[in-house]
Amino acid sequence: MHSLRFTAQSSSNGMVERDFTVGEVPGVLWSPASGAGRAPLVLMGHGGGNHKKHPAMAGRARLLVTRCGFHVAVVDAPGHGDRPRTAHDEQEIAALFAARAAGEPEGPIVVRYNAHLAQLAVPEYHANLDALQELPEIGTDGPVGYWGINMGTAIGVPFVAAEPRITAAVFGQHWPHVLAEQARRITVPIEFDLQWDDEHISREEGLALFDAFASKEKSLHVNAGNHKELPRFEADSAVRFFARHLVPALTPTA
Amino acid sequence: MHSLRFTAQSSSNGMVERDFTVGEVPGVLWSPASGAGRAPLVLMGHGGGNHKKHPAMAGRARLLVTRCGFHVAVVDAPGHGDRPRTAHDEQEIAALFAARAAGEPEGPIVVRYNAHLAQLAVPEYHANLDALQELPEIGTDGPVGYWGINMGTAIGVPFVAAEPRITAAVFGQHWPHVLAEQARRITVPIEFDLQWDDEHISREEGLALFDAFASKEKSLHVNAGNHKELPRFEADSAVRFFARHLVPALTPTA
Repeated sequence: MHSLRFTAQSSSNGMVERDFTVGEVPGVLWSPASGAGRAPLVLMGHGGGNHKKHPAMAGRARLLVTRCGFHVAVVDAPGHGDRPRTAHDEQEIAALFAARAAGEPEGPIVVRYNAHLAQLAVPEYHANLDALQELPEIGTDGPVGYWGINMGTAIGVPFVAAEPRITAAVFGQHWPHVLAEQARRITVPIEFDLQWDDEHISREEGLALFDAFASKEKSLHVNAGNHKELPRFEADSAVRFFARHLVPALTPTA
Repeated sequence: MHSLRFTAQSSSNGMVERDFTVGEVPGVLWSPASGAGRAPLVLMGHGGGNHKKHPAMAGRARLLVTRCGFHVAVVDAPGHGDRPRTAHDEQEIAALFAARAAGEPEGPIVVRYNAHLAQLAVPEYHANLDALQELPEIGTDGPVGYWGINMGTAIGVPFVAAEPRITAAVFGQHWPHVLAEQARRITVPIEFDLQWDDEHISREEGLALFDAFASKEKSLHVNAGNHKELPRFEADSAVRFFARHLVPALTPTA
């Protein structure tokens, strides 16, 4: 088992950013600047073609850190960010761009490539969580959430299905072909985002994946707009979801 | 045109409650206790079988008044609350209870009875808004929202479709048979609630009504659970929706 090794640290506007590695996998851990007190952790998964410090990741982390006082960790997926691309990665990316240029469906390529990346990434995510829980400010007994849309869902659904330490998750915007079967093993509360006019994922496909989760408490947020137009206010909603589920003491009368 | 006449006033925990009538129609207006400053108005419609001061109405009003500083008004629907029931009302209610007792579908009765009530109520809602806008603390140029679930949607959809003063609306939990055609004339931002395991309204019916709205900005919130289990946190979400749409100045950087 690999321990977590910090490689850089900076801080801005109330948030500390620490780069780390667990084995070969580079990650980033964002934490409140105000203290080293123990707090819940949210693991996030980035989208396809971007990386652990993409503005969407840093922006979501800032909401969780500054509004809730949580720790937030993201690692680069295989073939993404600071990690090398294999010949297979190059081939699948070329196939995706070719389909896009030809106006052909991207779904079949994304589904199979993301499923391949998930097989590589899921063991890394388990190891990453092991290593993060060795930090005294996280610990082994605190609540842990998972938040990943698009490719973050393709990796996150099999990860959460096999990871009892995750107690609440936000997913969205992926196809049911591979993931529905894994989603049927997930029982923790979820919030799920889909776009009503998604040009890649049909309504039926998006609804089928939401329907597959075995969670007794699950919420679907659908917004008008295409694949890239997920409204910014859904990030606020996800933050409130994690505040509800990872900090029971935040309920008004407690 | 009937003017608004106040008939009673009380106040508790930062909220003033004023009973009023507009013609024959009794209503209630909740306002911030802290001041008589002009503020946006949210009209609400209550559910079938209950009334203007049902705890769901008072609870939603409290959120809007104390968190946003808005005015909130509700009137009793025809045949509800302090208003007399006609022989037709009694007949339809008996038909509904008979269907329920026999385990037969309630939808066809609710759809036709609510459509009947909407025909009576919509002119009253327009007149009610006219009268409310004569109050100096509301005025004719302020933003106005509408919030009604169940029967509040059956009355609210035709009302909002014909009422250009409403600039944002929250609807949910009704059938598309009568309402979809009216929803196609609604273009203001909407938030729409449906229950994934509703024993009365099928998923296809609920999604068809959401789909019908012509609004460029529309959000659907689906939650696991049956007809009566709409989660309490959807009221918080609706309040944030009205805060976003009725008070542009509330946006963070303004």
